[in-house]
Amino acid sequence: MVKTSHKVLRAYPRGFHIITDIVEAEVRESGIRQGICHVFIQHTSASLTINENADPSVRADFESHFTRNVSEDLSLYLHNMEGRDDMPAHIKASLLGSSVSVPIENGKLQLGTWQGIYLGEHRNHGGSRKIVITILGE
Amino acid sequence: MVKTSHKVLRAYPRGFHIITDIVEAEVRESGIRQGICHVFIQHTSASLTINENADPSVRADFESHFTRNVSEDLSLYLHNMEGRDDMPAHIKASLLGSSVSVPIENGKLQLGTWQGIYLGEHRNHGGSRKIVITILGE
Amino acid sequence: MVKTSHKVLRAYPRGFHIITDIVEAEVRESGIRQGICHVFIQHTSASLTINENADPSVRADFESHFTRNVSEDLSLYLHNMEGRDDMPAHIKASLLGSSVSVPIENGKLQLGTWQGIYLGEHRNHGGSRKIVITILGE
Repeated sequence: MVKTSHKVLRAYPRGFHIITDIVEAEVRESGIRQGICHVFIQHTSASLTINENADPSVRADFESHFTRNVSEDLSLYLHNMEGRDDMPAHIKASLLGSSVSVPIENGKLQLGTWQGIYLGEHRNHGGSRKIVITILGE
Repeated sequence: MVKTSHKVLRAYPRGFHIITDIVEAEVRESGIRQGICHVFIQHTSASLTINENADPSVRADFESHFTRNVSEDLSLYLHNMEGRDDMPAHIKASLLGSSVSVPIENGKLQLGTWQGIYLGEHRNHGGSRKIVITILGE
Repeated sequence: MVKTSHKVLRAYPRGFHIITDIVEAEVRESGIRQGICHVFIQHTSASLTINENADPSVRADFESHFTRNVSEDLSLYLHNMEGRDDMPAHIKASLLGSSVSVPIENGKLQLGTWQGIYLGEHRNHGGSRKIVITILGE
């Protein structure tokens, strides 16, 4: 069985944000009890990853790490017409990835205790973002 | 339903290259209308990722970013017998990943407007590369 | 068909470790001949990736690369109460990823000749780690 749903996320500020509840709701609604939940972001300057769901300082440290490690010095880039945050956003999107996939059992995401699904918004003003949730299983 | 196909990519120069059309052709041929398309590269010094499909300068900036950020200084590595580009290629392959997966609906990859599938060729002379395309769905 | 299994890995030292055989055993046991094997780690300070399976110096160079490139300077982090290795471990987990997925054909993982599945243990004393193996196919 396959269930696909499209969601439009509200505009988030640059940084990392937990969207686990949006994905969990789709799993519940799908009726699929066992399988895989795949979440895909249809953008090249935002990303999806899984990390710590409790302390907001982890998300702040993600933002400062990636800002330090992916330079915003425009002189380093050829693709520089869309602002200092644009090319670095593309690189961060590929470092972190455009999808996450999580096992489902007993109708629930099998995330570890401390795991949540992060949206990485890498643009200063990224606007709303579209995701596709695909649930495969039985 | 599952469809698996093996493809041999021609040798590409070091850098990032768009291979979306090769994957799209397999989706079309599979007859699968809804599900997931998984693309896997059977190598440890090349990678797959999803990023901007229009401006070639983005792919050039990917190459310069990863060359800057993953050192080719042989003195940093124990695994140094296969050339200055070898160990960095392994690291880049894991930073970017050995697979991408993309939702399928109405028989089509649900990529965003600006998304394409990149082959990351991280060796100076990587030769041809083998990928496996697996399409799961209905 | 879907088969899900939970495994508890023994405690590994900080660094990168090959766990391919554990995954291969589940594929064999599942009886699934064609599809995808998805491996997921239920932790935010350890990761899964695919890389070179032969020379142990590659795994040592992975460890030294990620230690160099993800700073352990506590002054850079807000989330600093669980030790110098904690916040860097979270970042490495997202750089490398919480899951890998590998095609299956003829009942076997379609890894390339030189590919193995790595556990990335990013804590100094991470303890045992839980993984979930989901096999989808026919």
